[in-house]
Parts: sequence; C-alpha cells; structure tokens
Amino acid sequence: MASADNLHGVIPYLATPVDAAGEVDRAALRRLTEHLIEQGVHGLAPLGSTGEFAYLDHRRREAVVETVVEAAAGRVPVIAGVAATTTADAIAQTKRWREIGADGILAILEAYFPIRDDGVESYFTAVADAAEAPVTIYTNPNFQRSDLSLPVIERLSRHPNIRYLKDASTNTGRLLSVLNRTEGRLGVFAASSHITAAVMLIGGLGWMAGPSCVAPRQSVRLYELCKAGAWDEVMTLQRDLWALNEAFARFNLAAAIKAGLRLQGFDCGDPLPPQAALGDAEIAVVRAALEKIGAL
Amino acid sequence: MASADNLHGVIPYLATPVDAAGEVDRAALRRLTEHLIEQGVHGLAPLGSTGEFAYLDHRRREAVVETVVEAAAGRVPVIAGVAATTTADAIAQTKRWREIGADGILAILEAYFPIRDDGVESYFTAVADAAEAPVTIYTNPNFQRSDLSLPVIERLSRHPNIRYLKDASTNTGRLLSVLNRTEGRLGVFAASSHITAAVMLIGGLGWMAGPSCVAPRQSVRLYELCKAGAWDEVMTLQRDLWALNEAFARFNLAAAIKAGLRLQGFDCGDPLPPQAALGDAEIAVVRAALEKIGAL
Amino acid sequence: MASADNLHGVIPYLATPVDAAGEVDRAALRRLTEHLIEQGVHGLAPLGSTGEFAYLDHRRREAVVETVVEAAAGRVPVIAGVAATTTADAIAQTKRWREIGADGILAILEAYFPIRDDGVESYFTAVADAAEAPVTIYTNPNFQRSDLSLPVIERLSRHPNIRYLKDASTNTGRLLSVLNRTEGRLGVFAASSHITAAVMLIGGLGWMAGPSCVAPRQSVRLYELCKAGAWDEVMTLQRDLWALNEAFARFNLAAAIKAGLRLQGFDCGDPLPPQAALGDAEIAVVRAALEKIGAL
Amino acid sequence: MASADNLHGVIPYLATPVDAAGEVDRAALRRLTEHLIEQGVHGLAPLGSTGEFAYLDHRRREAVVETVVEAAAGRVPVIAGVAATTTADAIAQTKRWREIGADGILAILEAYFPIRDDGVESYFTAVADAAEAPVTIYTNPNFQRSDLSLPVIERLSRHPNIRYLKDASTNTGRLLSVLNRTEGRLGVFAASSHITAAVMLIGGLGWMAGPSCVAPRQSVRLYELCKAGAWDEVMTLQRDLWALNEAFARFNLAAAIKAGLRLQGFDCGDPLPPQAALGDAEIAVVRAALEKIGAL
Repeated sequence: MASADNLHGVIPYLATPVDAAGEVDRAALRRLTEHLIEQGVHGLAPLGSTGEFAYLDHRRREAVVETVVEAAAGRVPVIAGVAATTTADAIAQTKRWREIGADGILAILEAYFPIRDDGVESYFTAVADAAEAPVTIYTNPNFQRSDLSLPVIERLSRHPNIRYLKDASTNTGRLLSVLNRTEGRLGVFAASSHITAAVMLIGGLGWMAGPSCVAPRQSVRLYELCKAGAWDEVMTLQRDLWALNEAFARFNLAAAIKAGLRLQGFDCGDPLPPQAALGDAEIAVVRAALEKIGAL
Repeated sequence: MASADNLHGVIPYLATPVDAAGEVDRAALRRLTEHLIEQGVHGLAPLGSTGEFAYLDHRRREAVVETVVEAAAGRVPVIAGVAATTTADAIAQTKRWREIGADGILAILEAYFPIRDDGVESYFTAVADAAEAPVTIYTNPNFQRSDLSLPVIERLSRHPNIRYLKDASTNTGRLLSVLNRTEGRLGVFAASSHITAAVMLIGGLGWMAGPSCVAPRQSVRLYELCKAGAWDEVMTLQRDLWALNEAFARFNLAAAIKAGLRLQGFDCGDPLPPQAALGDAEIAVVRAALEKIGAL
Repeated sequence: MASADNLHGVIPYLATPVDAAGEVDRAALRRLTEHLIEQGVHGLAPLGSTGEFAYLDHRRREAVVETVVEAAAGRVPVIAGVAATTTADAIAQTKRWREIGADGILAILEAYFPIRDDGVESYFTAVADAAEAPVTIYTNPNFQRSDLSLPVIERLSRHPNIRYLKDASTNTGRLLSVLNRTEGRLGVFAASSHITAAVMLIGGLGWMAGPSCVAPRQSVRLYELCKAGAWDEVMTLQRDLWALNEAFARFNLAAAIKAGLRLQGFDCGDPLPPQAALGDAEIAVVRAALEKIGAL
Repeated sequence: MASADNLHGVIPYLATPVDAAGEVDRAALRRLTEHLIEQGVHGLAPLGSTGEFAYLDHRRREAVVETVVEAAAGRVPVIAGVAATTTADAIAQTKRWREIGADGILAILEAYFPIRDDGVESYFTAVADAAEAPVTIYTNPNFQRSDLSLPVIERLSRHPNIRYLKDASTNTGRLLSVLNRTEGRLGVFAASSHITAAVMLIGGLGWMAGPSCVAPRQSVRLYELCKAGAWDEVMTLQRDLWALNEAFARFNLAAAIKAGLRLQGFDCGDPLPPQAALGDAEIAVVRAALEKIGAL
C-alpha cells in the first residue's frame, strides 16, 4: 500500500473500461493501470467524473476500485472517488474503498436539491472522519448543484484528514483564493479546465484530470519542467497540450478519453448509453490533438 | 390492478417516509397511501422528486413501490418513478416496477454529462418500450442537466406508450407549446411550479405534485371546480392554495412536505441527510399555508 | 389627453420605425398609431423593449414619444417607456415624456452592475415621484441584470403612483404571487412570454406586448372573450395566437415585429444594426403565424 | 500624442470622478491621471466598466476623454472606451474620441437583444475601420449579453487595426485558447478577474483593470518582476495583491475603486445612483487590502 500523505504531480482520472454488456472490463482496466504507472504518473484516481462514476452502480464501482488497487500494487497511491447524494451512502463507500485498499479518497457531493453550507460541511466531514486517510475534496460549480463555498473550504481545511482540493471550475483565481485562505493546510490540484502551468505557478501540487490518461508522459514532463522552474519550456509544451484540454471541454469527457485511448490501442469500450461515443469528426479532433504532442 | 390509460386529476408525488436508520418506513407509507386515497386523489406517484428518489438506492426504491402498490390495492393507478443515468438501469427499474404491479411509469432522465437530443430520445424510448404500459415523461429544466426539447417531445409523443408529460418548469407557456405540437397525443400535467388553474384552462389533465400530499382534499376540490368550468370559484380557492406552492418553491421540497405531513399527524421522518429538516421559522410558514386552506 | 388611471386590455408595445439613416420615421409611426387605434387597442406603449429603446438615443426617443402622443390625440392613453442606468436620467426622461403629453410611464431599470434591493426601490420611487401620473413597473429577469424582487414589488405597490406591473418573465405563477402580495394595489399585465388567457384568468388587466402590434384585432377579441368569461372560445383563439408568441420568443423581438408589420403593409424599416433583420425562413414562420389567425 | 502600437504593462481602467450633481469632476480626473502617470503606469483606459461608462451620457463621456487626453499630454497612450448598442453610435464615438486625441480604442458591445456571430463581427469591424488606430476588443461573458466567440475573435484578429483583446471572464484558459488561435496577431490583456501572474506566464501583455487605479506602483512592480522572469518574487507579491482583486469581485467595481481612491486622498465622489457607495464594513475590507500591499 502506498501513501496519500504526500500527493503531487500527475494523477490521472481513470476511464472506466466497460464491455458491451456494461460490465467493468477488468482486464482492460489492469492494462491501463499498468501502462500509466509505466509512463511515470504519480498516482491514480479511479471513479472521478471521467471515470463515469455517475453511470456506475455500487457493484461496478467496487469492481473498479478492486481492480485498480490490485493492479497498482502499492507502486503509486490510489485515490478512489466517493460520490453520493446521502451522507450515509458516502460513508459506506468510503469505508469500503478503504477496506479494499484505496490510499486516499476523492470526495464528491452529488446534490439533487440544493444543500446549505452547513449540510455541505457535514457531508465532507463525515467522509473525512470515515476515511482515516487523506481526503481530496472536489469542487465543480458547473456539474454540482451545491458547491463548496470559500468559507466552507476554509473550515474543512482544518479537519486533519482533509488535505487536498481539486477544482474543476474554469476560474483559476479561485484556486489562489483557496490557497490564501487555507495557508498551507490544503494542497490544490487542477482539473483539465485550468492551465496546469498557471496552477503550478501559483503553488498547486499538480493535476487530477482525465486528459493525462491519454498524455501521461507529456503530463509528467510538464510537471517536471514546472518543478524545475523552466517556465519557457513549460509554456512551449503547455501550449501544445492545451488543444487536448480544449477537445475535452467541447466533447463529452468520458467519450473523448475513451476515443483517445482507443486510438492509442487501449480499447475501453464506449461511454455508457445514453451517452454517445464520439463521431468521426470529433475523433479526428482528438487524433490531431494527440498527434501534435506525440502521443500517437 | 388499476389502469393508467386514463390518467387525470390529482396524483400526489408521495413523500418517502424513512426511519432514523434511513430505511423505508413501510407502515407510515401505507398509512399515507390509505389517507390520500380516502381523500379522493385520482392516482399516486411514488419516487418523484418529492419522494427523494435521488436519495434512495435500488433496494429502498423497490420497497417504496411494493408498499404503495400493495396499499393502493388497485383502487387508484400507481405511477412509479424511474430515474437513472444509464438506459440499462432505466430499463431494469421499469421492468421491476411493472413486475411489482405499478400501473404506469414516470420516466426521469438523470444526466451527469449533457446528453444530445438523440440520446435523450433513445433513453425515453427504451423506457417506453420496456414499460408495456402508459409512460409519463418528466421535464424539468431547473433540476435536470439535459432536458426534453420541443422537437424531442413531439417525436416521443408518437410512441404508443408515451401518453403523458409532467413539466416542472415555471414556464406555463411551454405547456401550451407542447399541447399545440402533440395534437392530442400527449396529456399534460402540471407541477407545483405552475398555477394549476392555468394549466387546466389550457387543456391540462391535472397535476402531479408534492403539495397535494398535504392538501389532497383541497386539490381534488380545485380539480372538480376546473372540470365544472366554475372559474370564479376556482380562482378563489387557487389564490389560497398558491401560498402552499410558494412555500414549496422556497424550501427543500421533501423537507417542506415532510414538515407539513408531520403537522397533520403523518410523521414520515426527515429528509435524508445532508438535506436538512425545516427550521422553526420555516415550519411556521408551512403551518400558516396549511391553516389558510383548512388543511390543519 | 387620455388618462392612465384605468389601464386595461390590449396595449401594444409599438415598434419604432426607422429610415435607412437610423432616424425615426415619423410618418410611418403616425400611420401605425392610427391603424392600431382603429383596430380597437386600449392604449399604446412606445419605447418598450419591442420599441428598441435600448438602441435609441435621447433625441430619437423624444421623437417617438412626440409622434405617438400627437397621433393618438388623446383617444387612448399613451404609456411611454423610461429606461436608464441612472436615477437622474430616469427622472429627466420621465419629466420630459410627461411634458410632451404621455399619460403614463412604463419604468424600466437598466442595470450594468447589479443593484441591491434598496437601490432598485429608490430608482422606481424616484420615477414615480417625478411622473405625477400612473406608473407601470417593468420586471424581466431574462433581460434585466437587477430585477424586482417580490418584497420590493410589495413595498413599491404602496406608492400612490405605482399602479401597474408588467412582467416579461415566463413564470406565470410569479404574477399570482404579485397579485396575492399587493392585494389590489397593483394591476398586472402580461408580456408575450405568458399565455394571455392564463393571466386574465388569475386576475390580470390585459397585456402590454409586441405581438399585438401585428394582431391588434385578434388581441382585442381575445380580451373581450376573457372579460365575458367565454373560456372555451378564449382557448380556441388563444391556441392559434400562441404560434405568434412562439415566433417572437425564438427570433429577435424587434426584427420579428418589423417583419410582420412589413408583411401587413406597414413598413417600419429594419431593426437597428448590428441587430439583423429576419431571414427568409424566419419571415416564413411569421407569415404562417399571421395567416393562421387571419392577420394577413 | 503617444502611440497605441505597442501596448503593454499596466493600463488602469480609470474611475470617473463625479460631483454631487453628477457632472464629471475634471479637476479630480486630471489629478488622478497625473498621479497614475507619476506612479509609472504604461497607459490609461478611461470609460471602461470601472469608469462607469454605462452610467454616463455622451456629453459626460466626451468630457472624460478630453480631460484624460489633455492631462496625459502624450506621456502614455490613452485607450478610450467605446460602448454602444448600435453600430452607428459606436462609429460616432470612435471618431469623436480619435478627434479628441485618444491613441487607441477599447471596443465594447452593449447588446440588449442577443446578437448573432455575424452581427458581433460586423460591429467590431466597423469600430476598427473607423478607429484608424489600434483597437482592443473587450470580452466579458458575465456582463455582456452577446459575447465574442472564439471563431469571431479569430476572424477579427485578421483586421489590421484589431490588435489587442481584454478578457474580463474568470476563465484564464480561454486566454490561452485565444493566443493559440490568433498566433501572434492579438495581444492579450487580463482583467481583475484573472491572476495577473498567470496571464503574464502564458504570454499576456499586461492588464487593463480597475484595481491598478489604487495600486499602480505595486502593479508596475508586479509587471516588471514578470518580465524579469522572477516568478518566486512575482508570486509573493501576487498573493498579497490578490486580496484586492477579491474585494473588487465581491463589491460593485466602481464603488470599490472610488472608496479606495478616497482612502488614498483622491476623492472621486460616489458611484452614480442607484448604485450605492460602499458601507463601512466594505470600506474596511478595501482598507485592509490596500494596507496589506502598502498602498495606504
């Protein structure tokens, strides 16, 4: 078992391979896990949004976590996604993923009706209590109906297990506001909606995002250049990588990643219906973006 | 078994009673079902938004449908909610609710990533195919990430099983657009966000909504006045009833209904955390609205 | 001079005819005014949104009010639009329109930065003080950055000059909330986004909207049927009229009205650039809607 | 006369000082202009959003441009804001500001009804044709009803006079998309909603924003550190400066700048009603932000 005490760098949101019957394709997921570790990623995040958590029932989610934990075999930390509408379900998922061997938890609140700040805080606190391991809280004003406000983030950052935040908005300034308010208590990760280089510049730890599934080597290279302070080289690489992020912003995220992985020889099936697989013109955009960075 | 071939009138969205452990309180749900039928409602809709479907796992949803079907005992049609992110899950729920004895299906699409029109259409078509019974399609631009566009509604209205639409927007004009486009193929039900009298005036069949759980008698009276064309009396009653709708629009829907039911002696527990129960000031608003219409 | 003390019925938002140089075409505006009065409208509202107030400078707005007041010649009340970002400008417009002879004022707040409730209230109060005549307050959450909240509307309804409200949202229920809260102090008018029949049913006074420029006779007929309580006939006519409202909701409002007027022989020029005139396919939709109701 | 051919660095959006009667306070504006030039700013942008252009009529806008052009006396370029709903008005403003002596134009589209891409393109093209000088196009999805899409920006970047873009969204990644698409033809400036350091890192030219009115020296220092590639020092300063941006994002922009200027001894009056001046608690936030960076 690895540790999530010092998360940093490139932690891909794993696509979830499924077969024609909608079952988790464990062999494909093992192969993808092995490939990403070989490429040098610093951690793995199954069951993020790219991983289609919202389309998988408990049994399938369990299969995902089991497969990734086994395949990673302690070489890099596995940060498993917990997403629920009820606190009780979130606690149950957290405990189960930890039993299976996840090193850390990525905590997502799925609100149907809007939730007040105190409810949001209680949800994430309950997950952190149950995790007995480092928790990354997830904020996304675009897909979540109730989001983490800055005062709630500040309060949550005082929980000993709440150690990281991943922000999936496009508002990079908000990350600086978080860093200023949490004064070293909360490490910040970018999503594919941010310019990685900018997040690294302001003090971010790395990024947790879908696109690094299809560009793991280039993502790691970008991270290393950032750490070395080689900002001119960073920007040369970042400019090329950005076309990939743009493609993911335009298309269904899971469909785009799965199309890219298929082009690279890692067939993970299609996104679960009624989500659509990418069409030919869209695949061409993904192909061009991958070719530009030498990922194909 | 009743029939959903001729749905009309007042079809309450049932609250889902839960105990302290979060389990479905079957006794309370039976009692509520019995009470509403006694008050003259024309149907029952378990697992609507008010019924907290988004907070219940499959096992609990099954318990809800079973309990309501048994308690209704064929006296009024039971329209059970199907809500899923994947087409496969929606089909499975549809088949199971029908096996249990639901007379019709209320079909809801839970999109995490946005879905294109053809995906939306395929989802509802799959539910309708599986239902082998009348289906009500649900549209709510406020809570659903991918909504039913008018062209999709028009195409779906040609499916022999897609017979009704419930609209939970505040845009009453959209219902008239639907009626004009579907030319008698689709019956329209209002939600609590519409003025019932206005929907009845333009040709609606009735309403499926949470508030009639706490005002069943007054809702039935309003329906009868509408059918009789007694519009002056309709508006006298409607004006008083509207305060109830306003309260539900301001507060968490499930919390407001459960507070109202508790005041009426039907304790259904609290909404599932992290949703909050109403506070004292909010309960006072619900109480005043109920007293005004003689429902307390 | 007519009086705005008893506004009701059909009060068209007048299109503003302009020539190729962008100057107000006074002759066309006189002709339109004459035509609408002949068709039986109950009032005239120049400088509403359909009248492109936002595209006209003070000199052109003055020309519009002068022309309509002169052409109406006291036969029906003229309700002139006041729209400004600053309170000082709103007061100046109000005083000038009243000097010219406007019988009432339609008050619109154009906010660039969001304004708090007390600022919104002070703006409308200042207009009402300056008007020394009945004022209609305008609320449109879709086009206005700061809107009138229900508590502000309730407070404003106690000003002796604030007598009417026109709501341009699609939320008909909000009008019932306004009526309930203002208890007879505020008369309510619908916009083209509402079903007129529904607004009349709940106690509205009529409608102020662009589409009645191109369907004045049919609009007056609908109003008379509503007043007579002939709801079945109301709905037969309303269903046909609704296609017109749908066309205006889809297209640029001013472009749609100007296209319709041109088809009817009242050439009012095109909307001011960079707004575009309707294309051929869009004109065909307007033509079909007009033919359906016998307005062409 | 200075030149706008090589815009870069810190170009404050000037507040517009007004007296109690709402007239432009030319003496205060001259004093502010002199002060900012002394502090080393690289240009001046009167009539931006901070400058309350939306609250000033043509006569007052003219007074602002005249005063700033005269006071700047060719020492730094003056980029005057043009904002209109009609193309004709935008052309007239552009020509007049250029006659008065503005070195460049900041072009803003004020749409009331939504405008299609071809209309947006024609508006900015007309301004650029009339300017006969470098034009900065302004994009702000939060305050503008019709915004510049990436394809329109790409096409506009080929106009010889369209040389710069200022983006007032919070989406820093969009700036990188613009830079990638316009390949050196369009220089990019940040607004106060972006982290300046991040925009400089990705290749931005500087920032045009209100907050540098109250922190000109610190803003210039930040710019120089960015140009020197001293990113560690950049971030130390940037972190402190960010609290200022946060204050401006929370409060009315003009009110916040005017409060800050008053604290610094440059009384510019209050924002034009119905905008409200900051209250005591809000002023305290601005004061703290200014003290933290030594600007008070």
